[in-house]
Amino acid sequence: MRINEFKPILEKKRADIAVFYNSDSSKQNANMLYFSGYKGVGALVVPKSKPAFLVAPQMEIERAGKSMVKKVYSMEKKKFFESICKIIKKSKIKSRTIAIDKNNFTLNSYRHFRKQFKKAKTRDISFDCAKLREIKTEKEVQFLKKSCAFADKILQKAIRNFKSFKTESEAAAFLEYETKKIGLELSFNPIVASGSNGSMPHHEPANIKIKKGFCVMDFGVKYRGYCSDITRTIYVGKISKKEKDIYNMLLSIQKNSINQIKTSKKCSELYDFVNKSLGKYQKNFTHGLGHGVGVEIHELPNLTLNSKDRIKNNMVFTIEPGVYFPKRFGIRIEDTVLFKNKPIVLTKASKDLLII
Amino acid sequence: MRINEFKPILEKKRADIAVFYNSDSSKQNANMLYFSGYKGVGALVVPKSKPAFLVAPQMEIERAGKSMVKKVYSMEKKKFFESICKIIKKSKIKSRTIAIDKNNFTLNSYRHFRKQFKKAKTRDISFDCAKLREIKTEKEVQFLKKSCAFADKILQKAIRNFKSFKTESEAAAFLEYETKKIGLELSFNPIVASGSNGSMPHHEPANIKIKKGFCVMDFGVKYRGYCSDITRTIYVGKISKKEKDIYNMLLSIQKNSINQIKTSKKCSELYDFVNKSLGKYQKNFTHGLGHGVGVEIHELPNLTLNSKDRIKNNMVFTIEPGVYFPKRFGIRIEDTVLFKNKPIVLTKASKDLLII
Repeated sequence: MRINEFKPILEKKRADIAVFYNSDSSKQNANMLYFSGYKGVGALVVPKSKPAFLVAPQMEIERAGKSMVKKVYSMEKKKFFESICKIIKKSKIKSRTIAIDKNNFTLNSYRHFRKQFKKAKTRDISFDCAKLREIKTEKEVQFLKKSCAFADKILQKAIRNFKSFKTESEAAAFLEYETKKIGLELSFNPIVASGSNGSMPHHEPANIKIKKGFCVMDFGVKYRGYCSDITRTIYVGKISKKEKDIYNMLLSIQKNSINQIKTSKKCSELYDFVNKSLGKYQKNFTHGLGHGVGVEIHELPNLTLNSKDRIKNNMVFTIEPGVYFPKRFGIRIEDTVLFKNKPIVLTKASKDLLII
Repeated sequence: MRINEFKPILEKKRADIAVFYNSDSSKQNANMLYFSGYKGVGALVVPKSKPAFLVAPQMEIERAGKSMVKKVYSMEKKKFFESICKIIKKSKIKSRTIAIDKNNFTLNSYRHFRKQFKKAKTRDISFDCAKLREIKTEKEVQFLKKSCAFADKILQKAIRNFKSFKTESEAAAFLEYETKKIGLELSFNPIVASGSNGSMPHHEPANIKIKKGFCVMDFGVKYRGYCSDITRTIYVGKISKKEKDIYNMLLSIQKNSINQIKTSKKCSELYDFVNKSLGKYQKNFTHGLGHGVGVEIHELPNLTLNSKDRIKNNMVFTIEPGVYFPKRFGIRIEDTVLFKNKPIVLTKASKDLLII
C-alpha cells in the first residue's frame, strides 16, 4: 500500500533508494509487507525514480509475483545484499544514499549490507514509515472495520459457547478455528486467562480447567492483512458485590476515556485521565492504555504516559484499560476505535458484564 | 535450558556478561527463550560469575517469575538498556566486554544500548548460541520426540477427515484446532496447498475449494517449546501414471537420502545426493533439503548446497525433498529425523501415496 506516498520520504531524507529485507521465513517485515504485499524471505527495493522491485529466493518467485510489486528478481541463496547490489549496478540505479529501517535491520545483516555497499550513506526511515502507517487510507479503514466485525462475531460466538469449553486451551482453539476456517489469520495468539491467570496481561492459555471468577479473552483477526483487537472479560460462577463494582468502575472508565478522544488530544492525557480515574487502583493498571492497529498489532499512536503522539483523523487504535491483582484476578476491557472527527468504536460486542 | 553450558561461551569470548533482549511482545527472542524459558518483552542478563537475571516491564513481572530464571527485576517502560545498566552498576557486575547476539540485535536497539554502555566492547555470540542449540540434550530429544508424535497424530487425523474439508482453510483450521485444544502451539502456520497452489512451497491456505490433484500438507506443533515438522502430500481425484511415478520417485529419494545419513557426513553431500538423484527434475527442487529443528523451526544444521555443517549425534533436523512445477502442482515429503549413531525418523505417518 501507498508506495507512492513513500517516495516523498526518500526525497525528504535525500536518499536515492530504500532497501527493506526479511531473512527469516518464519517472520515478516511489516514495512515490506505494507508497501509490497509480499510476506516471504527477500528484499524490497524502492529507487527514488524507478519502479520498486522485489528480490526473492527461487522457491518464492511465484508467490512474490502475486504481490503488488510486479518486478521480481531471483536471488542467490542467502546472498541478499550481493544480489541486490548486482541488480542495482546492472540497472544503473543510484545508491549513494540508502534509506533503511533501522528498527528491522540487525547488526549482522548490516555487516553483510556494508560489504556490498561500502561507501553508501544510510538514513533511518523506521519512524517515517511508522508515521505513514499511523494514518489509515479509506481502503485501510474499510479493511480494519471488516476485521473488527469478524473479531466481534467470532468472540461473541465463543462467549455464547463458553459453557462447552472445559479448558482455556479449548476456548482459545475455538477462537482460532473459527478464524482460520474462513481463511482469516489471527492478529496474535488469543489470550484466555481464567481466575488467577487473568492477573497476567499476556497469559498464554493453558490446558487447564477454566477457573471460576473473571475470565479475560483477548482476541483479534487479520482481514486482508489488517488487524483487529478486542478484549472482553466475563465472569464464571457467583460474583461478589465488590468484584461487580470493580468491573463496572473499569467499564465506565473505559467508556469515559473513549468520550475524551478528540482531534489533537494528547495520547498521554488520555492515559493520564484513565490513571487518575482509577484512584486507588492506579497501581493495578500495569500497561499502556492502547496502541495503534494496522498491518501490525502494535503500531503508532502509543497511548502511554510518555507518549508524544496526538489523536488525528483516520487513526485506528485500541482503548484497553485493565486492572490486575497478582495471583487473584484481572479484568481488561478493550475496543478498537477509529477516529474520524469523533471516536467510532469498531468492535461492538456488548461490554455489559456477562455472568456464566 | 543449558544456561550453565552457555557460560563457557562467555569464557571463550572473554566477555564479562551477555545481554539478550526482546522489545516486541508479538515476537520472541529464541535464545532468551532457550536460556530462560521467558517469552515476553524484556532482557536476559547472564554475568560470567553471578546468577543470570531477567529485566521485564511491570506487566510481565508475574509471568517472568514463572520462568527458569528466578531473579526478575522491573524495568522502566521502554527503558531496557537504561534499566539494565542501572542494575549492573548497583550489583557491581563487570561489563567491560558484553556478549550480544548480533542476529537479533537491531541497529536502533544498538544505538540505545551504546548510550548506556559507552565504552564496552561487544562480542557476537549468535553463532555460538546456534551451535550450542544444534546438539540436543536428552531432555530436549524427549520433548522433540513427543512433539513429533503429536504432529503425526494430528496430521493423520486431518488426513482421515480430509473428505469433510471443503476448503484449504478448513483443513488448516482443523490442524490448528486439534493442536490448540490440547494446549500445544503450532511451530508455524500450517500449509495446505492443493492443486496448482502446491507449486509454491510456502503457499498460505486460502478460503478456496480444495483443488484436484496433489495436496501438500506441511505442519508441526510445539510441545514444551520444541518444534516438530512433517509434510505429507496426498492426491485428490484420479491420478495419472506419470504423477504416480513422480511421487514414488520423490519418495524413494527421500528414503534413500535418510539412509545416507551417518556420523560426520557433510550436509552439503546429502543435498547433493538428492539433487543428483532427481535427474531431470533437479531444477524443480527449489529449496534446501532440510534444517535443524528445536525451539525454533529453523535451526542448525543447514542441509543445503553451500552448508559447512556435518551430521553429529543428537542433531534433530528435517529431510524434505520436493518438486515444484509452476502453475501446475508440487509434491513434498518431509520427516523430522534424530541422529543418534544412525538416523531415527521421528515422524512416523505413512508416506505411501494416499489417493482420496
